[in-house]
Amino acid sequence: MKNLVLLGSTGTIGRNTLDIVRRNAGDFRVIGLAAGANRDLLLAQIREFCPGLVSVAKAEDAAALRRALGRRKPEILWGTEGAETVASQREGDVVVSAITGFNGLRPTLAAVRAGKTVALANKESMVAAGALLRREAKRSGAAFVPVDSEHSGVFQCLAGREPGEVRAVILTASGGPFLQTPLRELRRKTPAEALAHPRWKMGRKVTIDSATMMNKGLELLEARWLFDVAAEKLRVLIHPQSIVHALVELRDGSVLAQLSRTDMRIPIQYALTYPERRDGFLPSLDLAAVGALEFSAPDERRFPLLRTARRVLGEKDSAAVAMNAANEIAVEAFLEERLPFTGISRTVEAVLAGIRPRCLDSIDGIVEEDRRVREQTRRMIAKRT
Amino acid sequence: MKNLVLLGSTGTIGRNTLDIVRRNAGDFRVIGLAAGANRDLLLAQIREFCPGLVSVAKAEDAAALRRALGRRKPEILWGTEGAETVASQREGDVVVSAITGFNGLRPTLAAVRAGKTVALANKESMVAAGALLRREAKRSGAAFVPVDSEHSGVFQCLAGREPGEVRAVILTASGGPFLQTPLRELRRKTPAEALAHPRWKMGRKVTIDSATMMNKGLELLEARWLFDVAAEKLRVLIHPQSIVHALVELRDGSVLAQLSRTDMRIPIQYALTYPERRDGFLPSLDLAAVGALEFSAPDERRFPLLRTARRVLGEKDSAAVAMNAANEIAVEAFLEERLPFTGISRTVEAVLAGIRPRCLDSIDGIVEEDRRVREQTRRMIAKRT
Repeated sequence: MKNLVLLGSTGTIGRNTLDIVRRNAGDFRVIGLAAGANRDLLLAQIREFCPGLVSVAKAEDAAALRRALGRRKPEILWGTEGAETVASQREGDVVVSAITGFNGLRPTLAAVRAGKTVALANKESMVAAGALLRREAKRSGAAFVPVDSEHSGVFQCLAGREPGEVRAVILTASGGPFLQTPLRELRRKTPAEALAHPRWKMGRKVTIDSATMMNKGLELLEARWLFDVAAEKLRVLIHPQSIVHALVELRDGSVLAQLSRTDMRIPIQYALTYPERRDGFLPSLDLAAVGALEFSAPDERRFPLLRTARRVLGEKDSAAVAMNAANEIAVEAFLEERLPFTGISRTVEAVLAGIRPRCLDSIDGIVEEDRRVREQTRRMIAKRT
Repeated sequence: MKNLVLLGSTGTIGRNTLDIVRRNAGDFRVIGLAAGANRDLLLAQIREFCPGLVSVAKAEDAAALRRALGRRKPEILWGTEGAETVASQREGDVVVSAITGFNGLRPTLAAVRAGKTVALANKESMVAAGALLRREAKRSGAAFVPVDSEHSGVFQCLAGREPGEVRAVILTASGGPFLQTPLRELRRKTPAEALAHPRWKMGRKVTIDSATMMNKGLELLEARWLFDVAAEKLRVLIHPQSIVHALVELRDGSVLAQLSRTDMRIPIQYALTYPERRDGFLPSLDLAAVGALEFSAPDERRFPLLRTARRVLGEKDSAAVAMNAANEIAVEAFLEERLPFTGISRTVEAVLAGIRPRCLDSIDGIVEEDRRVREQTRRMIAKRT
């Protein structure tokens, strides 16, 4: 029986994680939940899973939850500190880090410092603070297990290989909803169109990131830190069907690939049960029924943020922090229709053009840089509109 | 530096093996060669690689080689016993077993009994004597490393997995030259047409086996013994491009696949250098350039021997011996135009219909059963023509 802590329990990954817990009753005890502002769903989750410790974003939501739960209530905390406390509690074995965006960083770091096995879905924390998280994990004995389907694929292909055997690590990308859209039409694409992802059901932020392929750029940075792979060995391949999640090319030209049905619950379950593997509940992948697996090279004119991420891969820490911060603000602005779709990449590039990358080796330095870039990005977007 | 013994040095696998030795000079010393009747090529190989021990099929060829080589000649033996001596010599580290057909069995068994690492290309010996070879390998400490691209793929996908994790082992099949041929035209297909394999350059026997898909049937039996996989977990998937060689489905629904360019030298090199991996010399596999990987289910009306092999998988030992022996004789008759293409499967099925499968636990029993079935198959074919 593993003690599970779930950060971001009301999001897509969080809900899928709890589905896996339900299906593997007896394997997991949910001892902590952290969520944002979706109080109703969190309330239902508390009633179903009876965690001892819960955290929400705001004090008022914590108070409302306490009232709603009556006598047999768990301890209810709030804010970043609350999430950190939930993440680092002594009894936790596996901490699922599934808060969206940079907000996930401090709780993830708390879990790492407490030496937990971190099932990582929050790629932004690895992008913004990869070096720091690795250093702290080394110190505390924490381990990372990826939740992203692509990184889970890489993780499974790399199992049992020596680092010297690896020639390239290739992440596939569906290409999102605009893979075939004429370039001149991209500017007019609405949030609703960008949110209609052809393959994956995901949260809003990551779905927009898929449409711009910033998501794949963030994943390249995540892969670099998760697997300690040199930047020049990382590649992206368009694969609209999202069945092959990742490939690892070995030095002799042999390639290993990981495939599965397009269902997040497969990598989530593996992250939870790792190093063991439990029976799946979905029908087998039937390649004869699929017929053909399609691949193409990514077009960096269509997806300029992929080129941006590739450049940032080779730069000092603060470039990644800035890219991520500018992107989060730009996506927010796009979703609120204050920025056209193509404005997301233009904004991120403009912000990056204005900074000089430098090393950041403390969490406070990273948080401060993130705050500064968000401020600047907001101003930049406000000026335009 | 590994001491290499090569059984079947003048065949396709043998020549590719020596190409790998040339490209990895300093890693291997060729200390033994065994070949059939291709005296000229063998002579050139002896002059280039200077093995201490050589064997050929016939006494007269041995005598001719001795004359041709003059003073600084290796010891030259002949016949099955000669090949057995080459296979089991004390100094050998890796024995590449690449003699075609049932003839490879006794020398392979000699290498196994001598505790060698056997790089196995001769699938027929595993088909006819899998249980015996595994038992003897357990006793002597011999290990098998597959050379067939499909089995090398399975081997690489299985590395680091527990047996309990595996839900299915899937071998791909190109489908050979007659994958799209109208069924009623199969009867008239000539040896020249059957030998024109669209993907792989291989020896004549295995190329005909590819056209009937008996090859894939033999590979199922080989996989069963090589990897100790239950018959019901073994599957075949048509993949005309021969880029994905094998897939392993794990219990959680995740699938691992092994891919590479269609070049036998990749799995041969890995078999020779295993457990290490050396740099390849071919360009990387470029899936974007390939565009699409195609898959379909095998049609057992087109490839009746696949169904036959699947049935034999579940039967006692002598059924596999008989299937293999009948097939070797039928292929020979087809190549000599004494049997139509569709006569191969009809003959194998007729032979199998006439036997009652039984256990065979000695090499003499297996050899005797093989001899008896060959005799019977020859008579059956003679009667028809």
